[in-house]
Amino acid sequence: MVAVGVVGATGQVGELMRKVLTERRFPVSSIRFFASPRSAGTELEWDGGKVVVEDAATASYNGLAIVLMSGGAQTSRELAGKITGEGAIVVDNSSAWRMDPEVPLVVSEVNPEALTSIPKGIVANPNCTTMVAMPVLAPLHARAGLEKMVAATYQAVSGAGRAGVSELADQLETTAGHTEELTFNPASLDYPPAAEFAAPIAHNVVPLAGKLAGDGSLETDEEQKLRNESRKILGIPDLAVSVTCVRVPVFTGHSLALHLGFAEALGPEEATSIISQAPGVRLEEIPTPLLAAGGDVTVVGRIRRDQALRNGLALFLAGDNLRKGAALNAVQIAELIVGIR
Amino acid sequence: MVAVGVVGATGQVGELMRKVLTERRFPVSSIRFFASPRSAGTELEWDGGKVVVEDAATASYNGLAIVLMSGGAQTSRELAGKITGEGAIVVDNSSAWRMDPEVPLVVSEVNPEALTSIPKGIVANPNCTTMVAMPVLAPLHARAGLEKMVAATYQAVSGAGRAGVSELADQLETTAGHTEELTFNPASLDYPPAAEFAAPIAHNVVPLAGKLAGDGSLETDEEQKLRNESRKILGIPDLAVSVTCVRVPVFTGHSLALHLGFAEALGPEEATSIISQAPGVRLEEIPTPLLAAGGDVTVVGRIRRDQALRNGLALFLAGDNLRKGAALNAVQIAELIVGIR
Repeated sequence: MVAVGVVGATGQVGELMRKVLTERRFPVSSIRFFASPRSAGTELEWDGGKVVVEDAATASYNGLAIVLMSGGAQTSRELAGKITGEGAIVVDNSSAWRMDPEVPLVVSEVNPEALTSIPKGIVANPNCTTMVAMPVLAPLHARAGLEKMVAATYQAVSGAGRAGVSELADQLETTAGHTEELTFNPASLDYPPAAEFAAPIAHNVVPLAGKLAGDGSLETDEEQKLRNESRKILGIPDLAVSVTCVRVPVFTGHSLALHLGFAEALGPEEATSIISQAPGVRLEEIPTPLLAAGGDVTVVGRIRRDQALRNGLALFLAGDNLRKGAALNAVQIAELIVGIR
Repeated sequence: MVAVGVVGATGQVGELMRKVLTERRFPVSSIRFFASPRSAGTELEWDGGKVVVEDAATASYNGLAIVLMSGGAQTSRELAGKITGEGAIVVDNSSAWRMDPEVPLVVSEVNPEALTSIPKGIVANPNCTTMVAMPVLAPLHARAGLEKMVAATYQAVSGAGRAGVSELADQLETTAGHTEELTFNPASLDYPPAAEFAAPIAHNVVPLAGKLAGDGSLETDEEQKLRNESRKILGIPDLAVSVTCVRVPVFTGHSLALHLGFAEALGPEEATSIISQAPGVRLEEIPTPLLAAGGDVTVVGRIRRDQALRNGLALFLAGDNLRKGAALNAVQIAELIVGIR
């Protein structure tokens, strides 16, 4: 049995972490919840009772064995060292530690072996977009050697937290019933001002998810995360990756159109057969985020030859960005750490 | 002054053809409207008066100089020969004639010279997805030689006509206010059955637009149209193209994430400069379908280096699939034919 802490317990992913711990009957001996000072003092349900949320910044983490963190990169940078210093292993959902060579970046089905050494006491959970693609890419890479990936994403608003969900919901409400204007003259409609996203998101797609990296590449941090994290998780340091990250008016479920180039020939039929046996993946004729949301697996389909890339393969996949993309994989990492998988 | 006919005049694109003819003060001497027997007999407004819609299948087209057709591929195959036989030039918005080597396939800004020979009396209007990309690709190809295109699309529901628009509107209405279920458990919601699209379209993306080509490629006809029509319009018979066509919950405005490979090096700065001078195109920091819809130009941005393709360039663009993608370009072709551009 394990003493568990959850930092960012009142957030959207924190809520799901609590739910997934329960669903999967994680062997919790005792639990503590942490959040920002604003949420400290509120009560959250656990196992039929109530747990008072503690201030993450000032609390002692003494006695905890595993702490799941989902409080953002800044919080993780500030607190992870303190928490590991008090003896816990941190499973961090933020981007703070992912590219640290001393921090394993783990997708539970793909590279659990990376957990054999956790020198800093920190394990990183990949970005939600990267995460949902990895269970599909790993077995294809193992067979044929992935060399190139051209990706376009279709990212849900819940990837931007509760505020992202509200922004879409509010805009849908404001524009409800204005089908004629939306079809022929959307400039005539007043949208509430965009805050979480770079442009209105209802009835629109926004080709800028995350922030511009500011390094002269004109790429966003989201686009670079998919490249860098894929390289680290799959162990292909020179994987050539180009990505366009786009936010779409979907509540939950990140999707990717992937165009892949391999070292060796790999036909659609063999690829389908390989994917059908991969853990964490389900084949679907039309894989959509609506099919993936609320579930634990990446749905994948439209597997076909790609005519533009050498030994090319094209496919489409979708996964729940909150569950597998965040909360579920964090709990799965915890399961691996305590040896119950 | 020109005697003009519009076939499919009561449809969504037909309605816009009538509007665009008026907006652009096309020199109409007389006008006649045609549609299916179901719509024949109804009256449509024109220039302050009313015009009775004729049955397209049984009408005589005698005396017309130009007929804009938007009645679907089957209607075009059946009627185009009869109409040209009676002396009119047909500008056809369907897929029926696009790949016929004796039929010019024209984007007005890109290859007007193709109109110097119209052997069958038929000119084809490209597919709406292809169309919005061409004004951007043509000047880049002229400068650096386009060799590869990897595309993922974000296609609006109005590309499937009025029925597509209604299907999204109905599903949005049915699911309105169910933000919590949509975010955490969309399977708990009842959607109206999908008819126009292969899966529910509200709060979803559907990675199958059009129909499977059925030729063993596992591609859709939409995906093959973008490849084949791009090759013909740009004059690059061996252009390597891979495409994933995806329907998104946007009413109007088709978008494409394009990853391009060129024969010669072409940096983002030069590409931006070239695009800024291209006709029918406007640079935008964040080019979205909502910015494009209702307007005449393709909006384009996110222009940056592509790391996966040789001499690679990535960009995102969006255009109004009903206007430039259909009605506007058809009228622009008519303007070129009668020599007023």
